[in-house]
Amino acid sequence: MTIQDKPTGVALWRHVADGIERGIADGRFPAGEKLPGETELADTYRVNRHTVRRALATLAERGMVRAERGSGTYVESPKLAYPLRSRTRFSEIAGAGGREPQAQLIGAWDDVATRELAKQLGLKTGAALIRIEALRLADKTPICVGTNWLSAERFPDFGKIYERMRSMTKALAHYGIKDYRRASTRVTAGIIDATDATRLGVALGRPILIVDSLDVDADGTPLHCTHSRFVAERVEFVVDNSPL
Amino acid sequence: MTIQDKPTGVALWRHVADGIERGIADGRFPAGEKLPGETELADTYRVNRHTVRRALATLAERGMVRAERGSGTYVESPKLAYPLRSRTRFSEIAGAGGREPQAQLIGAWDDVATRELAKQLGLKTGAALIRIEALRLADKTPICVGTNWLSAERFPDFGKIYERMRSMTKALAHYGIKDYRRASTRVTAGIIDATDATRLGVALGRPILIVDSLDVDADGTPLHCTHSRFVAERVEFVVDNSPL
Repeated sequence: MTIQDKPTGVALWRHVADGIERGIADGRFPAGEKLPGETELADTYRVNRHTVRRALATLAERGMVRAERGSGTYVESPKLAYPLRSRTRFSEIAGAGGREPQAQLIGAWDDVATRELAKQLGLKTGAALIRIEALRLADKTPICVGTNWLSAERFPDFGKIYERMRSMTKALAHYGIKDYRRASTRVTAGIIDATDATRLGVALGRPILIVDSLDVDADGTPLHCTHSRFVAERVEFVVDNSPL
Repeated sequence: MTIQDKPTGVALWRHVADGIERGIADGRFPAGEKLPGETELADTYRVNRHTVRRALATLAERGMVRAERGSGTYVESPKLAYPLRSRTRFSEIAGAGGREPQAQLIGAWDDVATRELAKQLGLKTGAALIRIEALRLADKTPICVGTNWLSAERFPDFGKIYERMRSMTKALAHYGIKDYRRASTRVTAGIIDATDATRLGVALGRPILIVDSLDVDADGTPLHCTHSRFVAERVEFVVDNSPL
């Protein structure tokens, strides 16, 4: 263990990473474009290529750049800042980030309530449910896949309505739900599966943020459970830390 | 796209997953022990082994069981429910979950403020910082590695103090900070690196939850930035969704 010793090479690669980050922030290195090569960056910052590589690896880990084998390193679009609060509407969140929101219905199916889903939705295990899968995009970049479960009794033909409306808010309004809010949100991470990798345009093995949430109506009655998978490189959740 | 068609094989593996989940919940399959083999589970639920495998894969993705190659499938300890709120103390969170909290100092180093750290901490780029790395455990299971940065001017010898106190709260109290709170929290996910994999006892390639946060004192003055990496299989963040 080293206590309070002097910074050595560590500071050097962070200096380079910081310089490149500044270049991305001020537009010298625009989103979607290729960064200068390792040799050029090494010359610019007067360091060796190993130091440049370390700096680029750190920026890649933070999702700011993306290495493409045999081609070079590209600047990623900034992560979408996604607030986790009681009022959560994808269209508003993407819109607030200056992105064009879009929803695509993947499908709707009859389903039955597992023990866990039944508990969340206040139904009996085995109750008839409708399961909706939808893809959400911002500026045509896929952000997340969400699986929603609703009571088939309360929301008959919900799949057809959702397909027409392309919006959970509008589809719920069709059934007389004027407002709803997030009652619980649990977040963890995982590795993308093959199906979601194709839908989201992400390589196998990449990390995803997994969100399990429950939305309730104005009276607190459960409306739907959602199991969402977000591309970790494209999203950052922002937690509201206002003092209670 | 299939709209509202009947459930087919899908319900079957979920039925099996649900049955195993119930067995874990009621203690028939205790944490840390091996589940019955695929053949036995297939007999119990009157399904084929493919269906059992699908059920186990889903439970593994949710972190409830862990497959060990050549050995079998083991029941994981329940995920630590970790609230993301303005008052966040690891020891209280682990304690509330009935776990024994523990902190291990990895090291303390002199460092300098990058542009991003300087902005967060209200310092100038290049300002002298102290960087602390610590491992946090619950019931001897590593939960996260955290890197903290503090102003070296405001907190001289912080590394030595932290090493003695083994608690951020107690070390800050040494400098007269009676209370502090979380001012901002950003969450994303990534893949564990080799260093953290060793520290946390996790295989390479596994997902981590990455939390970047800023703590401030009672006056709102920045105290320290933290970059934490949590083992995704062992933690679930719970977001407070009380209406504002």
